[in-house]
Order: sequence, then C-alpha cells, then structure tokens
Amino acid sequence: MKNRTNISRGEQAQILELIHEFADLARTETLRHFRHPNLTADNKSGDGFDPVTVADRAVEQLIRDRLTQLRPRDGIIGEEFGPLATSSGLTWVIDPIDGTRSFLSGSPCWGVLIAVSDDQGPFLGVIDQPYIGERFIGGLGVAHGTGPHGSSDLRCRATPDLDKAILFSTFPEIGTKQEMHAFQRVSGACQLTRYGMDCYAYALLALGQIDLVIEAGLNIYDIAAPLAVIEAAGGVVTDWQGGAVGSGGQVIAAANPQLHAQALALLGA
Amino acid sequence: MKNRTNISRGEQAQILELIHEFADLARTETLRHFRHPNLTADNKSGDGFDPVTVADRAVEQLIRDRLTQLRPRDGIIGEEFGPLATSSGLTWVIDPIDGTRSFLSGSPCWGVLIAVSDDQGPFLGVIDQPYIGERFIGGLGVAHGTGPHGSSDLRCRATPDLDKAILFSTFPEIGTKQEMHAFQRVSGACQLTRYGMDCYAYALLALGQIDLVIEAGLNIYDIAAPLAVIEAAGGVVTDWQGGAVGSGGQVIAAANPQLHAQALALLGA
Repeated sequence: MKNRTNISRGEQAQILELIHEFADLARTETLRHFRHPNLTADNKSGDGFDPVTVADRAVEQLIRDRLTQLRPRDGIIGEEFGPLATSSGLTWVIDPIDGTRSFLSGSPCWGVLIAVSDDQGPFLGVIDQPYIGERFIGGLGVAHGTGPHGSSDLRCRATPDLDKAILFSTFPEIGTKQEMHAFQRVSGACQLTRYGMDCYAYALLALGQIDLVIEAGLNIYDIAAPLAVIEAAGGVVTDWQGGAVGSGGQVIAAANPQLHAQALALLGA
Repeated sequence: MKNRTNISRGEQAQILELIHEFADLARTETLRHFRHPNLTADNKSGDGFDPVTVADRAVEQLIRDRLTQLRPRDGIIGEEFGPLATSSGLTWVIDPIDGTRSFLSGSPCWGVLIAVSDDQGPFLGVIDQPYIGERFIGGLGVAHGTGPHGSSDLRCRATPDLDKAILFSTFPEIGTKQEMHAFQRVSGACQLTRYGMDCYAYALLALGQIDLVIEAGLNIYDIAAPLAVIEAAGGVVTDWQGGAVGSGGQVIAAANPQLHAQALALLGA
C-alpha cells in the first residue's frame, strides 16, 4: 500500500479529513440535482454527445472554493475548469460527476471522484456514490468502503485465471477499432463481460466483486481516484503496455498481478 | 391505468399487501447472499454463461411456500421452478433475481420482479432493488416509487422525438444479428444509448428518467412486472410489431405513444 513519508502525520490526517469533507459537499450538491425534472445538459462535444450539467460545474466550484481557502498552495486539476498549478507539491484531481450520461439517465452508477497526487502520482482517492450512500476510500494506510448495509475493508480478489474472471468496461465501443479488437480478445477469454458502470466498476474491483476493468480514452481525472483506491485494495492499475497510467488514455485495472499479466498478453497480441 | 373490476376491492387490497410482503421476503433473502464472498453460481446454459445462485432458488421457494399457504388456488410461473396451474384465474409471475449476472458482479442494478396476471395479462407489478432500498409498484390504481431519499409518483415523460431520447438495453448484442441491426437503427436515431441495467432500466423509464427500453429474447418473468409498472406510469409496452407482449421475446417499452411509433417504424424498417 502506497504511503508518502514526506508528508507529516498531521498533514496526512488533515488531507484525509478534507477529502471526506469534499465528498460530503459533493454528495449534498449532486443530490439536489439528481433525477430532478428540470435537469438539462449542455453538449461539450462537436460531433457526439458529451454532456455537462449545472451539477458537474457546481460541485467542482464548491470544492475549488473550499480548497483554495484551506490549502491555497495545493494545485487543482478538474474536469470542468482550468488547472491550477501547485506550489506545495500536492495536486487535487477532481471529476465532480464521473458518468454524467448515467447521472442524466437517473442510473445510480455515476460517482464523485477526488484524488490527491504528488510527483509520484495519486496516493489517496475517493469514489463516492451519493444516491446509494456508498463511499470507497483508499490510500495513506486506508482501504475502506461504507454503504447502506455497513462497512468493510477493500480487498481485490485472487481469481487466478481469465476464464473465471468478470470484466467491466463503460462502453462496448471502447475506443478506436484497434482498441476495440484488443479489448475483445480479453473479453472473449473472460467468463463474463458487462458494460455501463462508469467509475462504479472500479469500486466493484476494490470490493473483490469483479476482476478486471479495461478502458481507453480516459482523462487523468477519470482514473486518478480509482487508481489510488484499487492500489490500496491490492490491485494493479497500468496502461495497456504495463507502464504507469500517467495522464490517462488506455487503462487496465486488475484484481491481481496474475490476471493482469494474462490480460496484458492478449491486449498486446 | 389498468384495473380489474372482476376482483373485489377487498381482494385487491389483499393482493397489494401480499406483493409487498413477498418483495420484503425477497429483499431480506437476497441481501443475505449479495456480495457475500462465498456466493457462487451454477451455469444453466450449455454453450454460454447463464448463472443461477442459491439466492435465486431460495427467494423463489420462499415466495412459493407463502403463496400456496395463503392463496392455494393461484397459479405460479417462476424462473427457477416448474409452473403451477391456476384455478382462481390469477397467476403470480416471479423472477427472484432479474440480472443474476449483475448480482454476481456486486452491481446494484439487478432486481426482484413480482407480477400478478389474469387472462388479460399482468395487472400489478413490483420491481424491487434490495441493496439500494428502492421499490417501484404499478397497477390497481397505484404507480409509486420509494427509495433512500423519499418517494414519488411514477410517470413516464413526454419526450417527443427520438433525437432527444435515452435508450437502454441490457446487452449490446441484443439477440440475433437481425435483431441487433433493427436495434441499431433505433439506437442510431437516439441521443444516447446505454447498456447493462437489467430490470432497473424499466424502473428508470417509469420514473421519467429515460425514454425507451428495447430487448429481445425475454421470458415472461422478465417482462410481466415491468409491463405492469410502466403501463401504470403511462408508458407503452408491446412486442416489436406493436402487438401484445404475450410470453416474452422481443419487447419495446416506450415513455409515450409518439416515441413508441417512431421506434417501431425503425425496428420494422
């Protein structure tokens, strides 16, 4: 489990407290809009449907305002507004609503993603599902989930082979045609493939319920928080070549190194 | 909204009470197994993965036992056990876990489906999601949803055209190749298509959150309860030719007659 020894224990405790405070803020704000009959979306894409709602923007603004008040030297990378450079060495990476299409459809599988990174990448992340009331946090010695029926430690499972594995991805189209074919090689070797869960799939991986999430075309704010949560739960998150995720793109998250290696071999075949 | 004048008011009240009791039984029993580390599945399919778990069987057995005790003349059609003929004219149609693949993956979008039918078809249905704690009931003058953040009347929305519509289906493969092509004609005309929600998609339609659900290869127990809930919420449920759903197969559920007609034209093109 990643730890950051160059951050004092006191500061670690403050950061942990703050990430919960931000997730609480986001929970209240998103639920004001979720399933509201007047909720509408603007389209951010010229040639498709990439929606953003007043809820996305309001949540990110609330967190930015509170963060600059409390930790003005930290940087911010968010989906909806421009980046703010860090002078503390720490950067908060925020996707106010991951799965805006789900949010607009009333589905409960979108989430609020908040991560904290240093120059080695994300070391703390939260995946929060406000409607169900579930929160998954990983990093700084914590790997924990809470929900409507209690709480539990997060631990990825030990499924040894792809033919017993459950694979998730958000869209069946995945990315380019070549990326789709690579994905289909892995999918064809798995017991079960499912779509449409957005960030909730990463939470299911950390919960030990599924085995693989493979996606392409991600942005850093889509994957920073899931990466921290899954690594804290013992899983492996890399790009499709097995390297560091960096700023997004092709991502594979696996429950364990053995499954990760089997899937990588098929992605690169 | 469908009503059944040949059933006395007293019997209607008893049936309404009973369907809630059965859904409560199912909620408790499914949650004993959901996300349990020892949950495993048997495969019902020879050439694919059609899982059934101890939870599916236990839930259906509990409801059957209670029903034969209280209303021994009613018939039963369930997913897991053989049919029981009716001598009262009423038949209970039960899918103990619709979306067993979701259930096995820890996803919260499976549901318990319970319907009551007479010779004209289903006139009362419940879609229950135990983990989130949501219940959607429609028929006998009721069209109501309850969940963790309160309750609301169910009412399908008035989206006038496909290009503003949100379409859901469980699997991107849909059914046969021909069925998939028909589906893709509708999908290509919609604003947004999403996959993987199982029966929860029908609840979102009744809630006025989405506009269309199109599926193929359904069984009667997959669609009886959603049909009653959606009709009670003002929506339209037919086969792909616009006829009665009958025992399953190809099903289209639409928020309103206008959208239904537009989608049918493309399905049959």
